[in-house]
Amino acid sequence: MKTYKIAIAGFGGVGRATASLLLSRRVRYHQVYNANVRLVAVCGSRSGLINADGLEEEQLDRLEDGLSGPGFIEESGADVLIEAGPSDFRTGGPGLAYLRSALSAGRDTIVISKGALVHSGKQLRDLARGSGAMLKLSGAAAAALPTIDLVNHSLKGCEVLEIEGILNATTNFLLDAMTTRRIGFDTALHEAQQGGFAEADPRNDTEGWDTACKLLILANFGLGTDLTMDDLTVEGIQSVTRDRIEAWSKEGLVPKLVGSLTRVNGTVRAKVGIRTYPLSDPFANIRGKDKAIRIITDAMGETIAIGSGKEPLATAAAALKDLDHILTVRAANPLSA
Amino acid sequence: MKTYKIAIAGFGGVGRATASLLLSRRVRYHQVYNANVRLVAVCGSRSGLINADGLEEEQLDRLEDGLSGPGFIEESGADVLIEAGPSDFRTGGPGLAYLRSALSAGRDTIVISKGALVHSGKQLRDLARGSGAMLKLSGAAAAALPTIDLVNHSLKGCEVLEIEGILNATTNFLLDAMTTRRIGFDTALHEAQQGGFAEADPRNDTEGWDTACKLLILANFGLGTDLTMDDLTVEGIQSVTRDRIEAWSKEGLVPKLVGSLTRVNGTVRAKVGIRTYPLSDPFANIRGKDKAIRIITDAMGETIAIGSGKEPLATAAAALKDLDHILTVRAANPLSA
Repeated sequence: MKTYKIAIAGFGGVGRATASLLLSRRVRYHQVYNANVRLVAVCGSRSGLINADGLEEEQLDRLEDGLSGPGFIEESGADVLIEAGPSDFRTGGPGLAYLRSALSAGRDTIVISKGALVHSGKQLRDLARGSGAMLKLSGAAAAALPTIDLVNHSLKGCEVLEIEGILNATTNFLLDAMTTRRIGFDTALHEAQQGGFAEADPRNDTEGWDTACKLLILANFGLGTDLTMDDLTVEGIQSVTRDRIEAWSKEGLVPKLVGSLTRVNGTVRAKVGIRTYPLSDPFANIRGKDKAIRIITDAMGETIAIGSGKEPLATAAAALKDLDHILTVRAANPLSA
Repeated sequence: MKTYKIAIAGFGGVGRATASLLLSRRVRYHQVYNANVRLVAVCGSRSGLINADGLEEEQLDRLEDGLSGPGFIEESGADVLIEAGPSDFRTGGPGLAYLRSALSAGRDTIVISKGALVHSGKQLRDLARGSGAMLKLSGAAAAALPTIDLVNHSLKGCEVLEIEGILNATTNFLLDAMTTRRIGFDTALHEAQQGGFAEADPRNDTEGWDTACKLLILANFGLGTDLTMDDLTVEGIQSVTRDRIEAWSKEGLVPKLVGSLTRVNGTVRAKVGIRTYPLSDPFANIRGKDKAIRIITDAMGETIAIGSGKEPLATAAAALKDLDHILTVRAANPLSA
């Protein structure tokens, strides 16, 4: 039986949930892959834990100062890195250094935070290709909602003509509340902040940047484009008024913040902004914090997926789906057995 | 560059569409997999064509008598069999002999017709396991709608708690027409028959058997159960009256013929019958010949997929998605290079 040593960098809500879910699935990894999966290191920005024999659930709330950084992960001897740090697409965020280090060293890598993928996606892909490491990113591409999965697996062989997605839970909650309960943007935002799913500074969500990040990752890693944020047209929901909502309602239309990719003359055009849908369209009925994607291909027509997992568990599960895919390949490959 | 020789057994609308789509994708197979994909044989129940150098589109309408049967496919030296014959779950249909022969010989196999999988699924799985052949069946499990894909790939690692699906296009068309246009069952059926998507004897669809077949394949090949048709409760739509539709409408409910799988105390209960949905449920808005599936898992919550490809192209594309997955594995495996 082979041992797979896992490290998690970034230990907020999602990193912590990923650790717990991983530990709870150890028996399954054993049964399905004949794999001994061990959590050997976790770290936040300033503290962490390390144990070559494997960490246990009850230790995870007592991180030790000073154990952090790419060198710390290196030392742990991890085979797989799960990166779950804060996302910053303008700088790449703290995740970038972890990812560069892991991929350069040939370590299979599961990315949850979007920043580094948006900032340096091409470089990270090249590093992975160069070292033979696997680079997985379900958690960064709308998490439990299948997106790149659909393009690369379920619709494999087809040409993608168009994609549109409701990819951001916070803005969908806000627009849904404004539409169905006729409350204003500020009231809805206050509710979301009280509920803990909108930031004190909500602009990354409300101005469309989070949707734009997911869209760009979907384009570059799903459709093989090489777009940067400058190639995207990005509009948010911050200026949607009650009057506008009222007017749409009278026409039987429901507004959604949508990221879209369209193939035009061989290039892909990417855009984030509000689109409206009649009530008979599945997109009109995406409620609260749910997400959805519609993919149009040449041979399979229209495929829609709708996801409504609870966070942070659903994102943790998306990241560990990537681990399953890594184990499927690594366990089947006699070279790494 | 490796050559992959493909044979198609069963050459009605779907088999024919699969052949054309395969031929149109040869350049792509070359580019993506460095594979020379050749269509070396096709056959219906009494006639066929064979050419070791590869058949071309313009030859496919002139089949020669006497070229048919498992022995004929054997002779063609095909590496991969695509089985697209008529489906009969009570006998296994003509596909069963082709599948037994191909899987015994270690030939990778793509199944489109459901009959043999329902009748002898376990035996076929065992034959594949014994010979090392790959057994793929996207085309038989609701075709362009991702179903087993979702369970085995997009939701990998999660425990499936419940599945429900609108899996049959004909009955969805009928119920949709009866509900939205207030026409009777007989009128709707006549329309579907005129449109060519309901059989002269429509009972396989209307009595729920086609849905039951897909559900059983989904359970046995997606969830690893070992159910037979006797384990299923099957009800159709043939006795739905206009009065009943009227009454549901007054309550704001939309009826759908649904196949469902529920995990109860470790076993899976399978059922086909009418369920009703409020208008806010995506299932209520599945129109015409579209299909849908809802999968509930422990860690990712609810995932819904909706598919609306045009037949027979969409089913051909589902079968060739399986071919892509076969090529991905075979082209990456040095043993078969």
